[in-house]
Amino acid sequence: MTKCQIAVCQVKVTDDKEKNLLKTREMIREAAENGAEMVVLPEMFNCPYEGRQFPRFAEEYPDGVTIKTLALLAKENQVFLVGGSIPEKAGDKIYNTSYIFDQHGQVIGFHRKVHLFDVDLPGGLRFYESEALGAGDSITVVDSPWGKIGVAICYDVRFPELARRMVDLGARMIIVPGAFNLTTGPAHWHSLLKIRAVDNQVFVIGASPARDETAGYVAYGHSLIVDPWGDILGEAGVGEEIIYGRIDLSKVDTVREQLPLLRHRRHDLYQLK
Amino acid sequence: MTKCQIAVCQVKVTDDKEKNLLKTREMIREAAENGAEMVVLPEMFNCPYEGRQFPRFAEEYPDGVTIKTLALLAKENQVFLVGGSIPEKAGDKIYNTSYIFDQHGQVIGFHRKVHLFDVDLPGGLRFYESEALGAGDSITVVDSPWGKIGVAICYDVRFPELARRMVDLGARMIIVPGAFNLTTGPAHWHSLLKIRAVDNQVFVIGASPARDETAGYVAYGHSLIVDPWGDILGEAGVGEEIIYGRIDLSKVDTVREQLPLLRHRRHDLYQLK
Repeated sequence: MTKCQIAVCQVKVTDDKEKNLLKTREMIREAAENGAEMVVLPEMFNCPYEGRQFPRFAEEYPDGVTIKTLALLAKENQVFLVGGSIPEKAGDKIYNTSYIFDQHGQVIGFHRKVHLFDVDLPGGLRFYESEALGAGDSITVVDSPWGKIGVAICYDVRFPELARRMVDLGARMIIVPGAFNLTTGPAHWHSLLKIRAVDNQVFVIGASPARDETAGYVAYGHSLIVDPWGDILGEAGVGEEIIYGRIDLSKVDTVREQLPLLRHRRHDLYQLK
Repeated sequence: MTKCQIAVCQVKVTDDKEKNLLKTREMIREAAENGAEMVVLPEMFNCPYEGRQFPRFAEEYPDGVTIKTLALLAKENQVFLVGGSIPEKAGDKIYNTSYIFDQHGQVIGFHRKVHLFDVDLPGGLRFYESEALGAGDSITVVDSPWGKIGVAICYDVRFPELARRMVDLGARMIIVPGAFNLTTGPAHWHSLLKIRAVDNQVFVIGASPARDETAGYVAYGHSLIVDPWGDILGEAGVGEEIIYGRIDLSKVDTVREQLPLLRHRRHDLYQLK
């Protein structure tokens, strides 16, 4: 299959997990009714993006309520589901983890955010994810009916090495559940997703929570679907909404033939492993 | 020195080398009179960007007229000069080469374009640089009074590995003489230069020839000065003009402290050498 109708659900996250799951269920159903074959959720779609909340919202695999709910929703709606991310408890650690489900509701992979967001941004925004979270130790590329998919979470997308490694592992699409903020969002979000797509000649899908000005951490919104040439196929505003993109994976091959960037790399001058 | 007044001369290139050099001389003088300490010229500023023209315009180091003229202009005007690029003859090959001069007119380094632009773009633009040119074999980072500078030519900027390696070699500024065209320019030029700056937290300076709709290969223009946060400090239009940017290299350190991307790389998951 080369064509895929993608939906990105820009969920407005509250501090009530059950409410978040109900809303997510509604949005996935609506997306499926509108023909979506793949649905993508945002980073921390079931939990406010605040370090102190992670332990309270964290759940374990495989019996956590969010994980079970997503499995059911993927199956019921027959959609491939990249489940944004949730706080995942494993041993004595909590990770920022994305579960990925096939159309039968089977977990086919997961990604634990590998780059933790420890920053002191201009304007006084301080965030130290490592105070609350552990970091993953793997690069995540999974199979889908449309080819291989890389999954990176938010800050992960700032590292060109990671996207490149995913592509060397066969990714033709990179999914980025991500909650940029009102400092980094306007400054970098669009260009970053676009250039990861352009450099690697893959589709890039960014899924942000909706903006909530009353939240402790205010997400940027602007979920985005970018094609391998860097054209934007779909973009959300700041509110709760679903965006759609009909993507054709054969465009990956077309662009790679026109502008053979991957083939033109000078492996004699630099090597990425 | 952390502060530097940079000028980018967006030269309109003709098929008369002498005319191009006279124009370049005028523009460098004007830039110096306006306080420029570093001047950057565009890719192939002395030669039309057409494969068949390269042999006719090519010159050898150190006695080529363009190389000698630039040395003199750097010295006379006491500017650090990144001499865009010219067709350079060496042995039986021609390279797309940037000569770099200190304020005393000494050649302190050169970069031969390492990635050759062999493409079949949408809209029918075909360009096979390798039919006319040899490829360089080195990554180029030189010293300047303001710290280390990486030099990449046009298509080189499309390879994130190269920029990253330059930064690992100490570059705090990346200079890109580049002639994007009317297909790739509007699609990628701004975002590419911006994200190379943002990913690597360096200044990026792109120097394009002015647009000439009557030329065989029509350059995009829009020479650009981008700071390490991705803010655009200066941008040309499409015509012949000089743009200026007062850059402060300490911003490299500030941004790297706020958002420690280079330190946050996961060398255990990927390695670039």
